Amino acid sequence: MDPDAVAKAFVEHYYRTFDSSRAALGVLYQDASMLTFEGDKIQGAAAIVAKLSSLPFQQCAHVIATVDCQPSGPSGGMLVFVSGSLQLGGEQHPLKFSQMFHLMPTPQGSFYVLNDIFRLNYA
Amino acid sequence: MDPDAVAKAFVEHYYRTFDSSRAALGVLYQDASMLTFEGDKIQGAAAIVAKLSSLPFQQCAHVIATVDCQPSGPSGGMLVFVSGSLQLGGEQHPLKFSQMFHLMPTPQGSFYVLNDIFRLNYA
Repeated sequence: MDPDAVAKAFVEHYYRTFDSSRAALGVLYQDASMLTFEGDKIQGAAAIVAKLSSLPFQQCAHVIATVDCQPSGPSGGMLVFVSGSLQLGGEQHPLKFSQMFHLMPTPQGSFYVLNDIFRLNYA
Repeated sequence: MDPDAVAKAFVEHYYRTFDSSRAALGVLYQDASMLTFEGDKIQGAAAIVAKLSSLPFQQCAHVIATVDCQPSGPSGGMLVFVSGSLQLGGEQHPLKFSQMFHLMPTPQGSFYVLNDIFRLNYA
């Protein structure tokens, strides 16, 4: 399994789900998962979904510019680093963002998000 | 030891060293270390230092905007996510960048960089 292909597939799935149904992202996180969103620290799948669902916009569309990935060590984890832009409904200009995910393997042969750090890149 | 304080101290040390003597960054990496620099994949401390030393500018100054960190799992590692800007000698405008480091503990109680991913954020 090519790590770059796995990373790209994960990123496409993640933002497609984010842009259509944020509440459905919960299955990608577990209780140990951590999100740092613009400096706010949140832990656990339920709290992370509550945070993402509460963001003050109804419509958004992510456009991915770059996806980089590296294995994170002997645990079989994978680091995925994304840059792109985010168009919010009602806003004229897209916002640039960077985000990193640390994906960990599940016993079922899939991955969950252990670490997630998101930052807007202010111009 | 407060992880946020460790992350901030590492980041300040890293960019101070980068801006004054890139060759001295080698002690922060090991043979297993990986760097992805604008999509180029490099492995091992010697190759990473060679890459950083060969970047086509003589003078640079990093300005850090944000530092976020999270523990990366049971191995005692730490993920550090940085955004900031980079002023190159002879250039009028600073370049915005994002970078992530995965720091792993050494037997001596310090950290080395296992993973390093760097991207410029083009306007």
